Amino acid sequence: MKNKLNEEMLRLGKERSAIRELFEYGRQRAKEIGAENVFDFSLGNPSVPAPVSVTKEAERLLREVPAEQLHGYTSAAGAPEVRAAVAEYIGKTFSVPQKAEHIYMTCGAAASLTVLLGALCTPGDEIVVIAPYFPEYRVFIERAGGKVREVPAAEDFHLDLGALEEAIGAQTKAVLYNSPNNPTGAVYGEEELRGLARLLERKSRERGTPVYLIADEPYRELSYGAPVPYAMNLYDHAIVCYSFSKSLSLAGERIGYLAVSPRCADADALFAAVCGAGRALGYVCAPALFQRVIAANLGKASDVSVYRANRDLLCEEMRACGFSYVAPEGAFYLFVKSPEPDAKAFCERAKGHELLLVPSDSFGIGGYVRVSYCVPRQTIERALPAFAALAREYGL
Amino acid sequence: MKNKLNEEMLRLGKERSAIRELFEYGRQRAKEIGAENVFDFSLGNPSVPAPVSVTKEAERLLREVPAEQLHGYTSAAGAPEVRAAVAEYIGKTFSVPQKAEHIYMTCGAAASLTVLLGALCTPGDEIVVIAPYFPEYRVFIERAGGKVREVPAAEDFHLDLGALEEAIGAQTKAVLYNSPNNPTGAVYGEEELRGLARLLERKSRERGTPVYLIADEPYRELSYGAPVPYAMNLYDHAIVCYSFSKSLSLAGERIGYLAVSPRCADADALFAAVCGAGRALGYVCAPALFQRVIAANLGKASDVSVYRANRDLLCEEMRACGFSYVAPEGAFYLFVKSPEPDAKAFCERAKGHELLLVPSDSFGIGGYVRVSYCVPRQTIERALPAFAALAREYGL
Repeated sequence: MKNKLNEEMLRLGKERSAIRELFEYGRQRAKEIGAENVFDFSLGNPSVPAPVSVTKEAERLLREVPAEQLHGYTSAAGAPEVRAAVAEYIGKTFSVPQKAEHIYMTCGAAASLTVLLGALCTPGDEIVVIAPYFPEYRVFIERAGGKVREVPAAEDFHLDLGALEEAIGAQTKAVLYNSPNNPTGAVYGEEELRGLARLLERKSRERGTPVYLIADEPYRELSYGAPVPYAMNLYDHAIVCYSFSKSLSLAGERIGYLAVSPRCADADALFAAVCGAGRALGYVCAPALFQRVIAANLGKASDVSVYRANRDLLCEEMRACGFSYVAPEGAFYLFVKSPEPDAKAFCERAKGHELLLVPSDSFGIGGYVRVSYCVPRQTIERALPAFAALAREYGL
Repeated sequence: MKNKLNEEMLRLGKERSAIRELFEYGRQRAKEIGAENVFDFSLGNPSVPAPVSVTKEAERLLREVPAEQLHGYTSAAGAPEVRAAVAEYIGKTFSVPQKAEHIYMTCGAAASLTVLLGALCTPGDEIVVIAPYFPEYRVFIERAGGKVREVPAAEDFHLDLGALEEAIGAQTKAVLYNSPNNPTGAVYGEEELRGLARLLERKSRERGTPVYLIADEPYRELSYGAPVPYAMNLYDHAIVCYSFSKSLSLAGERIGYLAVSPRCADADALFAAVCGAGRALGYVCAPALFQRVIAANLGKASDVSVYRANRDLLCEEMRACGFSYVAPEGAFYLFVKSPEPDAKAFCERAKGHELLLVPSDSFGIGGYVRVSYCVPRQTIERALPAFAALAREYGL
């Protein structure tokens, strides 16, 4: 018997994300030829373990808190003491008078975004994203009823304020940015973000409603020197979507939060809409144990120096091979120029060397590949001959 | 500056669910007069601790599995070994040839439902629900683009096949049922479910596309004697939405699954659409630690005898007070007839005695209140004088 499903969801499910697809391919290939012979640079799955304090706190909670309290529902927005701790941490770290009642604990950054977009979007609304961008942005925005407005980054993958000026209009609900950036590793500086803030202030004033600024910050702690300005200090109508996936290496535990700036227009109403969207999407509460675990680990981070060392090794060797790229300032991705215009064809060739790289097409621009270097150092070391052979194939 | 949010999400966020609202009120009231003086019967938050084996397994995993493996992303549909364990458990327990590739691990029953409804619904589709029903069904169905078609239950809160026959037509995408039932405690028997299956088979055949049967089963293990038939054994086009929230007292950890029957039409396509909807709603994967915890605890359950004892005590005392109800066969709710037609007014009066009860209006029928008896026995014992006083107010 034939059936009529939601065609859009079917399409999304069949194509999967290009990244997830490669991840599954890598798992399969590892079974065939051994994990040590597959060089999987596809996924942003942290390779550094969670800090010991994370494990210790989980163990302590399991030992000391009665199970029916520990594992029961929390309030939909999160356990009150967890929200208070997060608000206090933000206040202390960024000098923002963050209110606990504007913290919404989420099942990770993806949930932070889907819930926020659900709260904000009405049909016709545009969300401005800076290309290249995390491909799921499009999926999340469109499901929320919004439209994606791609604005290309400048050549160095930083903000192009002129292009943003042109793109933002009456239909713009928000600008969504991600810094440190996936896939380019760019970290937006204070000056360019202040420029963006001034632009958004002017546009908001002109039309009489705020253009929101959404800071998607799962890589905040993964900057190798460049300061990462806090959006709320630059612009009133800012919402921060945070995740502990990368900072505490808890990607699979789905824990993060959404913080609405105390200076945001209609902050209480916006927060109520966030609660409504969370409810409608089936997010009853963020996982209870890990809410408490992160509350005791705010400001801590996995050993980020490992990623820095990976970056340095990979950059050096890729340069030696003849590949070109813009040196990443943060996150754990190297965005490499494809030696042929078709990045997908390049990635297929790379597969022949057991190198799993993500073509940039799904990030909204062609001609690049993303190399995730959140992998064991040996993976990079063992992959170097494969990268060299690949470069030779292209006569680099 | 005034803003334009998604009005529907704002409305949902402002009203909250009546249940969640009471839960928050109860927390507040507990601060004011002491938790022991508030008799909160509002929420289905398990009062019995998780089995010791749950805690032990969580501790073992934290101790023995390297953190970067334990807490990393799993595949979107779940860790392969977890999906295999769930499929094997279903196969063994219900004699269904469940395929692991049709198991999708979720962040609990709410996520199972929002993801499934997202996969199924196209505009105009109706989802049949049996009133009274869990109020979030409406929120989930409408957000997925579907329409709610309420079909009243029979007087004993079991299925009314005649009414279902009338309601199911070309526009029906699925029938969604919940047994053991929230809020009535009814457990649908094999005969009535076979009748429903025959009806759905005929309707499916007539129109040439399947009417899906969605079994929402968070209370499966909470039946006090009545067998709980397995939907897949009665009907081909069945999907089971399961949660470990109640069976293992893990409500806050958000862990459950969705199982598509191997005999379901287009099962692979349906599963792909489920993956697509999961992706679009931001469900990257179910929480990694608890995926593994439940895999080692399939078939185990918290001490359900506590709920049975609570039920017996509460039923006896409520009867003695003069209240009337249909004796619950499962779950942990007592559905009590309001002594005045307006259940909300009755609940307000109950609040005066510090009794927090949920009016039935949000469940799709008037004139009843839901009393959740998943509370410490002392709460029931201490509340008895309050129930008695309330009954006297109504001259019962």
